[in-house]
Amino acid sequence: MKIAVVGTGQTRFGPSPKSLAELMTEASQQALAEAGLKIQSVDAVYLANFSSRFSQQCHLPAVFASCFEVGKEIVRVESACAAGGLALKEAVLALQTGRYQKVLVVGVEKMTAVSTSTATRILATAGSQEEQKHGATFPSLFALMAQRYLDHYSASEKHLALVAVKNHHHACLNPQAHFHRKITIKEVLASRVVASPLKLLDCSPLSDGAAAVLLAADKETARLSNKPIFLRGLGHEVGPIELTKRKSLTSMPTVIRAGKKAFEMSGFKPEDIDLAELHDCFTIAELIQMEDLAFCRPGEAKRWVETNRTQIGGDLPINPSGGLKAKGHPIGATGVAQVVEVVRQLQGGVGKRQVKKARVGLCCNIGGSGGTAVVTIFSQ
Amino acid sequence: MKIAVVGTGQTRFGPSPKSLAELMTEASQQALAEAGLKIQSVDAVYLANFSSRFSQQCHLPAVFASCFEVGKEIVRVESACAAGGLALKEAVLALQTGRYQKVLVVGVEKMTAVSTSTATRILATAGSQEEQKHGATFPSLFALMAQRYLDHYSASEKHLALVAVKNHHHACLNPQAHFHRKITIKEVLASRVVASPLKLLDCSPLSDGAAAVLLAADKETARLSNKPIFLRGLGHEVGPIELTKRKSLTSMPTVIRAGKKAFEMSGFKPEDIDLAELHDCFTIAELIQMEDLAFCRPGEAKRWVETNRTQIGGDLPINPSGGLKAKGHPIGATGVAQVVEVVRQLQGGVGKRQVKKARVGLCCNIGGSGGTAVVTIFSQ
Repeated sequence: MKIAVVGTGQTRFGPSPKSLAELMTEASQQALAEAGLKIQSVDAVYLANFSSRFSQQCHLPAVFASCFEVGKEIVRVESACAAGGLALKEAVLALQTGRYQKVLVVGVEKMTAVSTSTATRILATAGSQEEQKHGATFPSLFALMAQRYLDHYSASEKHLALVAVKNHHHACLNPQAHFHRKITIKEVLASRVVASPLKLLDCSPLSDGAAAVLLAADKETARLSNKPIFLRGLGHEVGPIELTKRKSLTSMPTVIRAGKKAFEMSGFKPEDIDLAELHDCFTIAELIQMEDLAFCRPGEAKRWVETNRTQIGGDLPINPSGGLKAKGHPIGATGVAQVVEVVRQLQGGVGKRQVKKARVGLCCNIGGSGGTAVVTIFSQ
Repeated sequence: MKIAVVGTGQTRFGPSPKSLAELMTEASQQALAEAGLKIQSVDAVYLANFSSRFSQQCHLPAVFASCFEVGKEIVRVESACAAGGLALKEAVLALQTGRYQKVLVVGVEKMTAVSTSTATRILATAGSQEEQKHGATFPSLFALMAQRYLDHYSASEKHLALVAVKNHHHACLNPQAHFHRKITIKEVLASRVVASPLKLLDCSPLSDGAAAVLLAADKETARLSNKPIFLRGLGHEVGPIELTKRKSLTSMPTVIRAGKKAFEMSGFKPEDIDLAELHDCFTIAELIQMEDLAFCRPGEAKRWVETNRTQIGGDLPINPSGGLKAKGHPIGATGVAQVVEVVRQLQGGVGKRQVKKARVGLCCNIGGSGGTAVVTIFSQ
């Protein structure tokens, strides 16, 4: 079966006066409009949302039904920050049964209505309670990975900073991004230490936002889009929630396994990928995923960022959207927004940040400190 | 494709010293043991959990992976109190792709670790924020339905009480139930008013608990169980979250639509059902569902309960497990526990509460005030 993205939608990311329901509706309407469809003709809807505590709202399927005044099969899935990738996977399974032809996937989170300290407590629920009890919040878990990576591969904080600088640069070219501000290596290194060696500008922000993709199967794809982008590979893997259960701190086993599955299914190899949206919740995560997905060898990511190979214009542009770091990270929306960017890049319509000769793209969406990973590969 | 339940598991419902992870593990291990399987041979796991606020834990898939020290495709779904039914549906879709052979479905909630007032606030997130703002908590929403039902059909509070009395009676025969206490109509009517006409004994309790079912496809079914119980029908429907958007307060459109779908798929008619587990979060809900599922005509449910037709021994035993009212209502577990009861009844192994000649059983799991409904039909 051939499954394609036939519509995409995304709100601007960043603090927004709009409600959770309004954000979700805006992104959905864009994706539907691109395919010229009304919600009534969609067979099912998959929603990604991380925590009901940000907006005091569970039961999002029924909220969606209210927004569109519709009766339908609507599902919410969650697996921390990988909720978006997971919603896409469940939509793909629905299509693969042959019982559904058109499925909408919507990711949404509204994170800025609560205080930063409340947000930190909410984010902590994506981690191991035992680890959190000892003060290991997400910045500190990723700091452990970063410190080990720097030591093991003789890398420096400058290599981490280069990821932030690149992603902020890319975000300046993306009208939907949270930040439109170029930053320098010096600024990153001088920014406030959050959990050494990670500084404020190594961390993704709290954002509001929503993203949507409309998937269609087989004959519907050509009917609904003149530029359908096909799903070629998908891997979903979950492993233990604790970082302490991991043999190495410099790689994420779920990303390795999900990546292998996605490449195997697609028939593509890492060297075939023209652009990738990786899950840079912290700068170190982008370096680790570059290696876990075999774009480069372990320890080699630092050379790639030193030589700008992952910038737009380089061999393998990574996070041309600006990534979580600078496009923003409204958690439930993130995995879906990665797909939106890759699809729009492969369609060739993203203006100044267009990656040249973009034929095959990859998304890597992780949850927690890597307990969940969803990797997808798309091509024309 | 034939899909069957080949293993069931359920913890005792009610306040428990066990953690969310321990409850989830216990139910899962029972279901796996019944089929003689280890978790390693299961292709995917679907988890149902309502709110991360009860146990400060999102990212349950990775918690599950930790409990079993396993790497796997694990998904969490949520749609308020219908999370369990929804997890079953997603597991069925996975099997229907033909890419999975054995899928575990686990529902869990630990509700008693927080105060009752906190629990009430958490439960409110399953409803419309607009309605909640005006004080319309779930007891008051169901009270509106109850009041309208009593007026419209000239029924009395005694008819509501009869549902509670029956379900408490059934629960006394169920070792896994939250309550083992017979109650009288007089006691129900004399219990504290929560939201008139609903009194304390018209309401389901806050419970801890987990339930699990192992599903298998085609040839695997006979290999894994000598008493496989087959899924014959399934309907999932979502509609607007607000009660105010409903044309009538005496029926739930999602239940009607999901029921029709399930009956159509199964080839069975309402009169073919030998027992049913309905979603009696409040006593009125059981009466409404009896009518929406066409077991009896609108307004006729009161005659059925007056004449004990829905007791074990009657024409159509409803909630032989004790139902949400008396077996308990650990939200994420509820939809899965309904299936556990129906499957065990159809296998003929539930002792004193065994329904005679039980060949076809139905489960109805709803979310919120009926915004979501999942109806399933099983037979030998």
